[in-house]
Amino acid sequence: MENQNQSLVKIVSNSWNQQLGQANKLFESLSNEQLAGEIAPGRNSGVYLLGHLAAVHDMMLPLLGLGQRLHPELDEVFIKNPDKSELQKPDTNLVRQHWAEINSTLNSKLAALSPEQWLEKHTAVSEEDFKKEPHRNRLNVVAGRTNHLAYHTGQLALLKK
Amino acid sequence: MENQNQSLVKIVSNSWNQQLGQANKLFESLSNEQLAGEIAPGRNSGVYLLGHLAAVHDMMLPLLGLGQRLHPELDEVFIKNPDKSELQKPDTNLVRQHWAEINSTLNSKLAALSPEQWLEKHTAVSEEDFKKEPHRNRLNVVAGRTNHLAYHTGQLALLKK
Repeated sequence: MENQNQSLVKIVSNSWNQQLGQANKLFESLSNEQLAGEIAPGRNSGVYLLGHLAAVHDMMLPLLGLGQRLHPELDEVFIKNPDKSELQKPDTNLVRQHWAEINSTLNSKLAALSPEQWLEKHTAVSEEDFKKEPHRNRLNVVAGRTNHLAYHTGQLALLKK
Repeated sequence: MENQNQSLVKIVSNSWNQQLGQANKLFESLSNEQLAGEIAPGRNSGVYLLGHLAAVHDMMLPLLGLGQRLHPELDEVFIKNPDKSELQKPDTNLVRQHWAEINSTLNSKLAALSPEQWLEKHTAVSEEDFKKEPHRNRLNVVAGRTNHLAYHTGQLALLKK
């Protein structure tokens, strides 16, 4: 039997895991050549979105108080600059590896959290603000990142023939 | 001060409202002509996705035990058949009206739910299964539909010039 907090944590963590599973299935089905293509004419390439998602998930580690970032070097190409910049992108297989490593690290740390730890504040909110708005916790961050992932997964799905 | 259940309900309902706000802002910024266009060559049109989202949100009313559907006639064109079927689509302004009416009805009913009512089972789960899996409640449905909305919003954003 689940208690109420466990149920509520499960709603958000299941939603995250389901969306991540859907994204992974999609990335596995796409070749590096397909990932090099644009989601629509003149728009972001698949590999840019893969690197962008990897960087955003990597940032979740310190934001959730779960450790240091694994690949902060991703930010220059995939966060601070747009796809069509002059910067050379890392090899697609390397970006895939980083994506897998980041999510695997993040998920093993998330899986170890107790329901009470899920409800603790994230690191970007002050103790004072958290007292007034206790929903600004780890669960809230993961709910927001789940939407972000779903948004770009909808775009990446357009790369499938 | 929020209690713990209020905080948890707020995470999911804020996420839903935020995603819906983002989608509405996008739809308002797109002309009917832009909505008639495809999100990528050969893919779904904007108006098809608008009607599809409207139908899916309309289905949430009975699923959440919040009342009868308002526009079940949307299903034939926007759920049961693909965009490129022979079926004629309703006028885009009418689809926009249905979308607004459905979300407004749904959100006023959701806003009236107490935290305890958010945690009640939805209508597609049996009493017996719900005892074993109490996370299959109204919150869980809304979390899932938030991801669905984010997925298609990412695609619809490609219609912006």
